[in-house]
Amino acid sequence: MKELREAIEKWGRAAGTNVVKVDMFLNHRLETELLFQMGKVLADYFREDHPTQVLTVESSGIALALTTAHFLGDIPVVFAKKSPTIVQSEDVVQAPVYSFTHKVNNMIRVDKHYLPIHSRVLIVDDFLADGQAATGLISLCTQLQCQAVGVGVGIEKGFQPGGKLLRERGIKLKSLAIVEKIEDGKIILAQDD
Amino acid sequence: MKELREAIEKWGRAAGTNVVKVDMFLNHRLETELLFQMGKVLADYFREDHPTQVLTVESSGIALALTTAHFLGDIPVVFAKKSPTIVQSEDVVQAPVYSFTHKVNNMIRVDKHYLPIHSRVLIVDDFLADGQAATGLISLCTQLQCQAVGVGVGIEKGFQPGGKLLRERGIKLKSLAIVEKIEDGKIILAQDD
Repeated sequence: MKELREAIEKWGRAAGTNVVKVDMFLNHRLETELLFQMGKVLADYFREDHPTQVLTVESSGIALALTTAHFLGDIPVVFAKKSPTIVQSEDVVQAPVYSFTHKVNNMIRVDKHYLPIHSRVLIVDDFLADGQAATGLISLCTQLQCQAVGVGVGIEKGFQPGGKLLRERGIKLKSLAIVEKIEDGKIILAQDD
Repeated sequence: MKELREAIEKWGRAAGTNVVKVDMFLNHRLETELLFQMGKVLADYFREDHPTQVLTVESSGIALALTTAHFLGDIPVVFAKKSPTIVQSEDVVQAPVYSFTHKVNNMIRVDKHYLPIHSRVLIVDDFLADGQAATGLISLCTQLQCQAVGVGVGIEKGFQPGGKLLRERGIKLKSLAIVEKIEDGKIILAQDD
């Protein structure tokens, strides 16, 4: 997606060989117009799958989830909550999400009432790297007998296994930009589809 | 605000004498259309103050901050990040936020680069209760020589001191709905302005 590529080129920063910093427009400061443009592209891509809810995980996924939901006709958004431990409650379903950065399992959870059985769920997140968050969100859908109709992300780190993992599972995936690699401190983007 | 009052009446739940649960539409599941309506009202109210940025705190403030920023002409949003401890970095400013629920001080922080000096900052949050988060966000603005032009919130708990505190400091405040009290397990709303 042209506008996102331009934002990454203008504001993105590489750190080491695998960190892509986009705090300036995607996950600390939000470039509002860009978030709406991104949401529109995801909505157009997944409209044919008739999602009834958008599911994301706090915090950085919320903005893109909301704009996507807006362009899908103002369908509701549910954001999974994170906690370091399992929450004891019959009202929630939970899934582990392994953090490669911090080398721990965190739990994500949603209240059962907010994803009714047979919901058609579009999963949205700002980043796709190892695929841990997406896999956890899909697990929440499965536990609630909802169908994950697809996964839409802002930036896929193509050199990490998440994208391949989801595609091999037959999950419909749209990444608005793919980072091919980081080379000499520069972010190298893959060509758009 | 009529639509918000209706949502609180339909979906809000009281717990004990001071917890207002609005997970169904404001801070776990998001009722997308309502979030846009709320953002529009806040934007219309603060437009004359010419905010250049919207500042909120993760996670539940992000959605309302984004829709408010959208109706203010797609100005940027910055969301402060939470951490249990002080982060060691010259790039950030920080402020303590006392949690009455958990009886601990948490820290919130923003990267200095995202609120340039002299920014006109509109603070937005989903809830106003003790005013701790708003006070912390105002402190971040002050430290960065930015002007907090106002505070806009979804729901003010009128029986807690946050609203009074801000008004007494002369801060322009707009609450889209005010909970007067919880009585016999019911949420009693104050009349709109």
